[in-house]
Amino acid sequence: MTNDPIAGARAGIGFLPAANGPAPSPAPYPADIAEHLSRETPQAAAAMLRTLDPADAVRVLEQPEYHGAARTLAALSFAESATLIAAMAEDRAADLLADLAAGEAEAVLALLPPPVRQSLRRLLAWPTDSAGGLMTTEFVAVAEGITVAQALDHIRTVERSRETIYALYLLDPAGRLTGALSLRRLISAEPDAVVRSLAPSDPVTTAPDADREDVARQIARHDLLAVPVVDAHRRLLGIVTVDDVLDVIVAEATEDSERFGGVAALGRPYLDTGFGAMIRKRAGWLCALFLSEMLTASAMQHFESELERAIVLTLFIPLIMSSGGNSGSQATSLIIRALALHQVRLRDWWRVAFREIPTGLVLGAILGLLGMARIAAWQAFGFYDYGPHWPLIAATVGAGLIGIVTFGSLAGSMLPFALQRLGFDPASASAPFVATLVDVTGLVIYFSIALVILHGTLL
Amino acid sequence: MTNDPIAGARAGIGFLPAANGPAPSPAPYPADIAEHLSRETPQAAAAMLRTLDPADAVRVLEQPEYHGAARTLAALSFAESATLIAAMAEDRAADLLADLAAGEAEAVLALLPPPVRQSLRRLLAWPTDSAGGLMTTEFVAVAEGITVAQALDHIRTVERSRETIYALYLLDPAGRLTGALSLRRLISAEPDAVVRSLAPSDPVTTAPDADREDVARQIARHDLLAVPVVDAHRRLLGIVTVDDVLDVIVAEATEDSERFGGVAALGRPYLDTGFGAMIRKRAGWLCALFLSEMLTASAMQHFESELERAIVLTLFIPLIMSSGGNSGSQATSLIIRALALHQVRLRDWWRVAFREIPTGLVLGAILGLLGMARIAAWQAFGFYDYGPHWPLIAATVGAGLIGIVTFGSLAGSMLPFALQRLGFDPASASAPFVATLVDVTGLVIYFSIALVILHGTLL
Repeated sequence: MTNDPIAGARAGIGFLPAANGPAPSPAPYPADIAEHLSRETPQAAAAMLRTLDPADAVRVLEQPEYHGAARTLAALSFAESATLIAAMAEDRAADLLADLAAGEAEAVLALLPPPVRQSLRRLLAWPTDSAGGLMTTEFVAVAEGITVAQALDHIRTVERSRETIYALYLLDPAGRLTGALSLRRLISAEPDAVVRSLAPSDPVTTAPDADREDVARQIARHDLLAVPVVDAHRRLLGIVTVDDVLDVIVAEATEDSERFGGVAALGRPYLDTGFGAMIRKRAGWLCALFLSEMLTASAMQHFESELERAIVLTLFIPLIMSSGGNSGSQATSLIIRALALHQVRLRDWWRVAFREIPTGLVLGAILGLLGMARIAAWQAFGFYDYGPHWPLIAATVGAGLIGIVTFGSLAGSMLPFALQRLGFDPASASAPFVATLVDVTGLVIYFSIALVILHGTLL
Repeated sequence: MTNDPIAGARAGIGFLPAANGPAPSPAPYPADIAEHLSRETPQAAAAMLRTLDPADAVRVLEQPEYHGAARTLAALSFAESATLIAAMAEDRAADLLADLAAGEAEAVLALLPPPVRQSLRRLLAWPTDSAGGLMTTEFVAVAEGITVAQALDHIRTVERSRETIYALYLLDPAGRLTGALSLRRLISAEPDAVVRSLAPSDPVTTAPDADREDVARQIARHDLLAVPVVDAHRRLLGIVTVDDVLDVIVAEATEDSERFGGVAALGRPYLDTGFGAMIRKRAGWLCALFLSEMLTASAMQHFESELERAIVLTLFIPLIMSSGGNSGSQATSLIIRALALHQVRLRDWWRVAFREIPTGLVLGAILGLLGMARIAAWQAFGFYDYGPHWPLIAATVGAGLIGIVTFGSLAGSMLPFALQRLGFDPASASAPFVATLVDVTGLVIYFSIALVILHGTLL
């Protein structure tokens, strides 16, 4: 947030092509330029970056929309990269260094002023998906004993080099965080007041190893502009700001949505993903699901003699299996989201199970009635002849649907819990995953019910 | 954002139960109390609300986590509700009034101070999912000709009644927006400077009828703390702040994820949704999909004579159909998200189609090889006897997979475009919807290929 967080300052860039199509062409904001450069080759993007005013180049590199920023830096000289990195917001600078090859990152780090280098090295120590990886050390901190007027003077002095000045952090002589104060409180307070007396004790904080999703949730829940990151001794390590968290929330939602569709997270826009990468991201899950789904062929082989005697049963296999998959997909999507938003905890699994079983029974009964009505109607109007035992076939389809939809709802809702319990992300439970799980069991349920109901007649 | 946006001020509440389980019990923040009250009956919640300090009660009602807030208000007297509504952040107050029964809302509005009433009536005129429905009129606006010192004095005077003071909007004598200035710029500027000279011209703005998702995207893209809402004459109507946008992004992601699973958006947490509501939200799509999927039974009936002659073909129906659905689900999830993030536009449909066809062919070929290998292996090791024509059966399965996976990828990727073109939300294209679409066509593709390859042998 080194840009103006109110006005969304533009950069005066000439090389952007005029937008075509019916949308009116917006003036070039840094995010627009960043998107444009993402689509260029690293060499072309580096050349364009050199034509920019240095301050604008820095702002463009800071945009999370600039997917190829590290590749562009690699196409610049180490000295050029170091100048840009030194001027960038520290959290984004660390992200870019992390994306460079290790040797290149070291070469750039070596050219940086020592304080910046040390600070970046500390940030680079944290995983990118942790609070430590998101945070910046460019915050405003003051001794808790100074006055409001002194604090305001300090803010004016350091303003240019800080990511946000709307949060003021109070430290005791040992460097421990004792309070947080907003600029809002500060400018409406008496100039002589001691800042410590204005700050509510015990501000919301997070740990450097906290998951970035948890930090995002915390900021959203408490409507914060920034959350301080403290170590076990409450020493202030950095802050995570709301603009970074917005980007995290959007990225996590994309990842979850891609995974729910059964794709490994792309990590970049669809049209910017190469053909080979696209195949790799999709083939893995597709093959795993295909191999699991091969069990359906085994199940069908197992029931082959029944199939031969009552070929009419095969007519409803796709219908019944897909209904199980659909009800499972509904339950999974609800539970993944409820777990992600912490509306449901791991220990609530039995409460969910006790809701899903009656829900599945009712939904299965509704579909079962529809299915039986269809068979009766086709038989009555002569569209198809299911033979003399058609009421038993209808009963098999109806009972099968109740069993499979109930199993689908239960299995679909329990799968995210099981994954979380085993240490995986519950969002790995994709719709295709659930459908495959339910398909194999669904066939067994269907044929077992058929064996009971049709015993002595068709089977 | 009438709370302290830095410290996340707590409310001193006694009635919250101690959290059980291994998680350490957090002190009660307004969001915690709001969640607790959401689970109580309206009468119990109203009684608890009365025990709070009025300022705390207002902060609790302002939390978006408080799903039953309107029901709680309805359980209070009109006078009590009016007192709370008058003290609340205006954007949330308008949302709550919109949730009340029309007669109740009018009764509460009649008891409000006239300026608040007028302001709320203006906000209520906009749909809740538009920028107008999200915005607040509690912003800081000043004449563009005043000095920095005068602007700071004004901010100090009005601070308590404004949602944010970090954005200062400059108006010309006709009330038109001419610039936006951050408090950050202001406090580091010379006191004698005229504010107009500090503000970049042409700030990012939005229209009151803009979709809330577009406003969210704008704030995220330009790292803004607030975006001004202006009418066609550039008159400033209100502002949308980043904290409201965070809630919008989370809510939209939940809605999209539920819909992708084939559920109508719940609009409230899973465990707080009643049994009847849960059935209604799920039965609609499930029945619609079931009725469409009935076409598979018709398709199977159509090919019944082929099925009777070559029962071995039925063994692979679930495997082949599910692969088509899986590849379709992958493509749909990628395109829904790319459309939602504006990475892909409606006019890019052909670029997507030209990528999905080769992608589908390669993915289908991979699965086809796996399928043929499985048939050959089972035949070679004697696990199952597919008969003398097993190489032809393997070829049918392999070719069927290529055809169906390609069709699935293409249909799955085009469906969101088709929905958007027809004026629907592309996110209505759920995984079950795609699977159903692909299932029926998949059967026809499979049997048509079988007729060609097995003609003269099995068929």
